[in-house]
Amino acid sequence: MTAESPRPTITAFADSPDNGEGHARDMQVRWALEEVGRPYDVRLLSFAALKQPPHRALNPFGSIPTYEEGALALFESGAIVFHIAQANQGLFPADRNARARAVTWMFAALNTVEPPIVEREAFLLLEKDESWFEARLPRLDDNVRKRLGDLSARLGGSQWLDGGFSAADLLMVSVLRRLKASNIPERAGILEEFQSLADYVARGEARPAYRRAFEAQRAVFLDGKGGKGKRDG
Amino acid sequence: MTAESPRPTITAFADSPDNGEGHARDMQVRWALEEVGRPYDVRLLSFAALKQPPHRALNPFGSIPTYEEGALALFESGAIVFHIAQANQGLFPADRNARARAVTWMFAALNTVEPPIVEREAFLLLEKDESWFEARLPRLDDNVRKRLGDLSARLGGSQWLDGGFSAADLLMVSVLRRLKASNIPERAGILEEFQSLADYVARGEARPAYRRAFEAQRAVFLDGKGGKGKRDG
Repeated sequence: MTAESPRPTITAFADSPDNGEGHARDMQVRWALEEVGRPYDVRLLSFAALKQPPHRALNPFGSIPTYEEGALALFESGAIVFHIAQANQGLFPADRNARARAVTWMFAALNTVEPPIVEREAFLLLEKDESWFEARLPRLDDNVRKRLGDLSARLGGSQWLDGGFSAADLLMVSVLRRLKASNIPERAGILEEFQSLADYVARGEARPAYRRAFEAQRAVFLDGKGGKGKRDG
Repeated sequence: MTAESPRPTITAFADSPDNGEGHARDMQVRWALEEVGRPYDVRLLSFAALKQPPHRALNPFGSIPTYEEGALALFESGAIVFHIAQANQGLFPADRNARARAVTWMFAALNTVEPPIVEREAFLLLEKDESWFEARLPRLDDNVRKRLGDLSARLGGSQWLDGGFSAADLLMVSVLRRLKASNIPERAGILEEFQSLADYVARGEARPAYRRAFEAQRAVFLDGKGGKGKRDG
């Protein structure tokens, strides 16, 4: 099936607000495609283009990434990573029960671990000048620590969440990496309170497929003109 | 496969804080099992039991629901609904691309639409006596409205998100229903600003499988002693 599948096209920000650090969600999709060895094209979009009807037809919420492969059009980074893992070799275990557990961890990454991290990130970026900032922040820090503590306890000394590296680790590492965003330097360090998780993230970032994906998205930032993709809108 | 699969056991709160309104996440799993016609058992857990090692072994984050089926043990309501849809007839379209789109909407429900709804809900419940409550609330309301507006625009006059009813609608209706929780009556009504979404939720709630699931979880609340399940811990 893989060999005959059309070459996919994904969308990404032409001007990502993350300074090339790979926190935009095309990063997860690039990483997944690199893990399974699928070449891909990138269509870069301006912020204005995200809100226009052609992109809204692909993603009703006006965000990136999207994924087009022949007649198939998807959005949501988690779902795209799932599709790539499902349709190719390398990101899901073969055993049926092990695959169901990997899917469990994919949803856990995005629906249990990520929400308090994103809530805290948005608070740091958008409300840092509000009068309630210092009073509220410890509550958000603690919500993140609670999830990290539970995750750390489960991971223990294991390399990955459940046996070998899978799409679940790809998403979980991506979620945890958000805590290292350099645009909030004074509040970084929460990940380092959990050394086993910091090491887990480092293991993910050391994978050759991760490095290739990271450099590809960083090239877009560095040349500001499109990197390996072409700019639309 | 289905006929020979062991009868599953799920976990639920012995004393749900939602007054039997079906906002605890066992509801989605019960609904999915009813849609595909799979009988199931329920093990009810006290809040104390959620934090103990036996339950932590099933769910590292100490929440409900979990799902046990023979040697398979899962957590995360989204992942459990996915597993039920994958392993049985009735919640996923047969066409491969349509199924990938249904998965996209499952992730969209839980990773794009739900987070601002849960963030607002937690704020209403936990910070209503804080000095910043009235100043911050409009921001959270607007984050929810933005998602509801996008979703409403995509749904248009359709009955369901993408063709026939699927696991994606089951999750999306469940997410939107949270906005109707009666423990925050003074702040309800945001869903009704989007009539097509209120109608969409009502269509979901009118399904016979939904009604059976709702009554089963409500029975736990009403008798306070275990309903159709047995209490552990």
